[in-house]
Amino acid sequence: MKVQEFCEIADKELEKFVKQKSNLETSFNRVRPQSLKCGFGIQGICCRLCANGPCRITPDQKRGVCGADAHTIAARNFLRAVAAGAACYLHVVENTAENLKQMAQNSVSFKGKRTLHKLAEILNVPNRDEKELALQISQMVLEDLYKPRWKKMELTKFLSYPARYQKWEELNLLPGGAKSEVFDALVKTSTNLSSDPVDMLMHALRLGIATGLYGLILTNMLNDIIMGEPVIRTAPVGFRVIDPDYINIMPTGHQHSLFWALMEMINQKEAEQLAQSVGAKGFRIIGCTCVGQDFQLRGEHSNSVFCGHAGNNFTSEAVLATGAIDLVVSEFNCTIPGLEPIAEKYMVKMMCLDDVAKKSNAELVQYSPQNAYEIAKKILNEAAESYKLRRTKVQIDIPVDHGFDQSLTGISEDSLREFLGGDYRPLIDLIARGEIKGIAAIVGCSNLTSLGHDVFTVELTKELIKRDILVLSAGCTSGGLENCGFMSKGAEKMAGEKLRKVCEKLNIPPVLNFGPCLAIGRLEMVAAELARTLNIDIPQLPLVLSAPQWLEEQALADGAFGLALGLPLHLSIPPFITGSSLVTEILTEKLSDITGGMLIIDGDVKSSADKLEAIVNERRRQLGI
Amino acid sequence: MKVQEFCEIADKELEKFVKQKSNLETSFNRVRPQSLKCGFGIQGICCRLCANGPCRITPDQKRGVCGADAHTIAARNFLRAVAAGAACYLHVVENTAENLKQMAQNSVSFKGKRTLHKLAEILNVPNRDEKELALQISQMVLEDLYKPRWKKMELTKFLSYPARYQKWEELNLLPGGAKSEVFDALVKTSTNLSSDPVDMLMHALRLGIATGLYGLILTNMLNDIIMGEPVIRTAPVGFRVIDPDYINIMPTGHQHSLFWALMEMINQKEAEQLAQSVGAKGFRIIGCTCVGQDFQLRGEHSNSVFCGHAGNNFTSEAVLATGAIDLVVSEFNCTIPGLEPIAEKYMVKMMCLDDVAKKSNAELVQYSPQNAYEIAKKILNEAAESYKLRRTKVQIDIPVDHGFDQSLTGISEDSLREFLGGDYRPLIDLIARGEIKGIAAIVGCSNLTSLGHDVFTVELTKELIKRDILVLSAGCTSGGLENCGFMSKGAEKMAGEKLRKVCEKLNIPPVLNFGPCLAIGRLEMVAAELARTLNIDIPQLPLVLSAPQWLEEQALADGAFGLALGLPLHLSIPPFITGSSLVTEILTEKLSDITGGMLIIDGDVKSSADKLEAIVNERRRQLGI
Repeated sequence: MKVQEFCEIADKELEKFVKQKSNLETSFNRVRPQSLKCGFGIQGICCRLCANGPCRITPDQKRGVCGADAHTIAARNFLRAVAAGAACYLHVVENTAENLKQMAQNSVSFKGKRTLHKLAEILNVPNRDEKELALQISQMVLEDLYKPRWKKMELTKFLSYPARYQKWEELNLLPGGAKSEVFDALVKTSTNLSSDPVDMLMHALRLGIATGLYGLILTNMLNDIIMGEPVIRTAPVGFRVIDPDYINIMPTGHQHSLFWALMEMINQKEAEQLAQSVGAKGFRIIGCTCVGQDFQLRGEHSNSVFCGHAGNNFTSEAVLATGAIDLVVSEFNCTIPGLEPIAEKYMVKMMCLDDVAKKSNAELVQYSPQNAYEIAKKILNEAAESYKLRRTKVQIDIPVDHGFDQSLTGISEDSLREFLGGDYRPLIDLIARGEIKGIAAIVGCSNLTSLGHDVFTVELTKELIKRDILVLSAGCTSGGLENCGFMSKGAEKMAGEKLRKVCEKLNIPPVLNFGPCLAIGRLEMVAAELARTLNIDIPQLPLVLSAPQWLEEQALADGAFGLALGLPLHLSIPPFITGSSLVTEILTEKLSDITGGMLIIDGDVKSSADKLEAIVNERRRQLGI
Repeated sequence: MKVQEFCEIADKELEKFVKQKSNLETSFNRVRPQSLKCGFGIQGICCRLCANGPCRITPDQKRGVCGADAHTIAARNFLRAVAAGAACYLHVVENTAENLKQMAQNSVSFKGKRTLHKLAEILNVPNRDEKELALQISQMVLEDLYKPRWKKMELTKFLSYPARYQKWEELNLLPGGAKSEVFDALVKTSTNLSSDPVDMLMHALRLGIATGLYGLILTNMLNDIIMGEPVIRTAPVGFRVIDPDYINIMPTGHQHSLFWALMEMINQKEAEQLAQSVGAKGFRIIGCTCVGQDFQLRGEHSNSVFCGHAGNNFTSEAVLATGAIDLVVSEFNCTIPGLEPIAEKYMVKMMCLDDVAKKSNAELVQYSPQNAYEIAKKILNEAAESYKLRRTKVQIDIPVDHGFDQSLTGISEDSLREFLGGDYRPLIDLIARGEIKGIAAIVGCSNLTSLGHDVFTVELTKELIKRDILVLSAGCTSGGLENCGFMSKGAEKMAGEKLRKVCEKLNIPPVLNFGPCLAIGRLEMVAAELARTLNIDIPQLPLVLSAPQWLEEQALADGAFGLALGLPLHLSIPPFITGSSLVTEILTEKLSDITGGMLIIDGDVKSSADKLEAIVNERRRQLGI
């Protein structure tokens, strides 16, 4: 395969590895053949909602057959995408709450008791037996999710920053039952229903709030209760974490709590014996995609079973191509379909725990909290069987130089506060003194079209830390940045002088890894804490948000939360909206007078960094620092 | 505007009218400029789920960047469309159940007490006070809709034909909570989740069952309770129903029960006085789209206030262009965006009762059962105000020759049985004796691309009745067929000799009008009654289904129910699936071994009629008749 057929890849060791594998088709070499894009689709002005279509808006034909114009069509497409993204996160929080409920009912002990009590306090649940607390909390979450749309969710108030809650109330942005908000967005965007772009964009913000407070923040806290809170530590990252002497299980997805029983069983004698019976040293979990980030974040609680995070979404194909993975267990996105032919080639068994993520070649074993142990047992048996079947037949090729041994991880809203001495004041002082100019949350996915795999993320991060802006990362950006060394010793050298000194003094890298995209919710909790400490509203903070390489519909729902929070949100490539001047204008300009948020589209690294820095500087000026 | 710029229109008086209106842009003359279709979109192999896209499948590039192939992409697009369509119908049944619940709580009396008792019996609710019955039934419906997906809905069993229920249970097609089934379909079709076409098509069938039993059948019955049961009668149809001396209100949508309070108030003295105060004789409801069909179906209960059905979906723009409509109240689809510029031109006030159908130029007055009277009052006031403002300024031009005076309407599963003498046996005897060869349900929308507005529907109907096949109609097909005279005296002359004699003897037309698309559920109840009487399963009946001019996502959900019922379903143009040989093969071939259903795609009228007749003949042969 010719070198020029690959897209750019920021991680040079990874690039070397995939380029060595001849005849391996991956996403990296499907980018170029798909590079001729449809102008209508990319601008969001193609409509295929009915049999009169697809219709496309052109300068000569300003309406589809039904009369829908560019604004209606782009807004419908956008809202439907945000709704799907919101649905994904809400599906995760629902399953997590169901898990917690079932564990409480079965009196399984929780690893994160501190979070259990903290959440109970936040939600105003009177103190009582831990089992009862967990039951009541999970029930409250589920009840809110299942409310009809005309009933406002009740936990919103407790989870929101007060100034934001008030703003959302004024703007009629408080969400009704989250599942019904998604449902009605789907209805609203169907054939010949809503034609009102403004109403649809406001609906998108409402979905953003439901996503942020429930899909992100609550999921993190429920996961903390079930799987244990993040603890700051260093851990190895990259392909070097894969040890071929073990039976290697690679989960993909976002639903960490679906593995609680597996983590328990894998630590038991029987599992070790099973592994040894097929000639392996034991079982290992290989981190990949966001569920791997979540394992890494809480690695403190998983002993040696979780051996480290290998890579993010589009790195997964290459991880499989090492030949050292025996089983892929998918439970959500980002399980890219490109894994399937590679799994076939390397004889990797694929299992799926949730039918929403059913891969065509995977065996579906639908997870339910009731059969968690049974499924964990099946996973172990299938993995051992796969190991036995395939290890004599496939070649193993692990690029052991890939990655880093001591990448900083385990950062959360709580562990960071603890690290700072129990209070965010020291961070604020650093900002006030200009030793840290501001904060940029670099979050979301990696895509392959924003310069290449992790390329924009890496380059923007370099630019920002050089300007003494501390970077917080969550999502596939974390996987990319850690594999490029930004969370390891030495990274401080890439920072500007002031930030470098702070890093040296505190012994931290200039990019702090909060873990999976779910942890975007943690960053937003940090933002709220900073605002609370300063007694200002979130949009006044010298804090900017960028999802430079957003990929999925979920990223749009995350983004909608950012905009509802009043944050400036940078993307290097726009969502499919630019065919509507109205939709584009609302999101990039008018919104700043509504929620304070603003979408910034900029595909140039330096210019993006300039804009983000300018916002930080302006906020500093307004705060008088 | 040049004549050749119009699409074909089956209704020649309508065609004459719109062609006379120079400078009137309608859907009819937006078809030709939009006739160059995107081949990827139309085949369902364009994916715009992520920022790496849009991707398109070509013979050279068989996978999108993520690795998704044509089958995954087409199945995802299809399932998402079916889910949106199902969501639409389920939204309607939810609102209808909420209405019933609130009316019961407020002790408002019901017009359809017989249906109330019948439904209570079907659902096994012990007999009691009518208010209690209504409360309990609405509660049972709402509880089922809101169940999580892992809990099966409980009313399904009571609403299903037993042989079908058993089949669905075997196939794991029984739906969990309907709203969650929709929700999870949205998740499943999001970026990098399901890649399994088979699982996704089975999910579509499950959504079809939820749509049919809840969205269609239950909505009809709840509407029957609230608004009164259909009674067979004749009524005027077409533009002739519009009287310019009245204040004319045109509802558009599908949520008939949202007008219960308006219908009550409009009959009171105060309304008449209000109308007279602005110089009008009174208020009139002009039927348009399916909500108009529903008014027509139950016209027996609305006195002279409902003056008749003017036309179906794409006829609505022309109705507005008569200048005689003072207010449009939209509450759902099919409120086409093309109405908006015409409303502006003719100074027609637009109101919207449900934000899912918010039109960009409409005032949103969100309906809730609690404020039904208040909203009805506002509608009357706004309509009177609009009448006062506009009548001196706009020219009125009603083509009074359009339509028919005595079109047969009011047919339902019950009124037809009554008409037959209390039992379906006489119809079965007619079929057994060959006087009626079989039954074709010609249902769904009108689109403008299957030969033209109502063209395929009209031509296929002609072909089928000529072959002595009795046609039952529901949806926009009804609006088209009645405006072309198929439900009026004289239509029997278009039928084959045997069917003509039956029509003459029973004094019925060869096409029976069941009303709105919701009434597709009534047709399916008729099918179940016929099967029950014969003690066979539904797929054995000499009964075929065609949605020749399907338009909307809802039609796909209807269609999925037909396929789950085991019916042959004809469409003149395919859904956007043909780019996947696998998806196409499953729906058009393999499904017949699964549910017994089969998708027939045929764009030629005669050949379609041949296929449908052949199926009828084969079924007759198998039944030995």
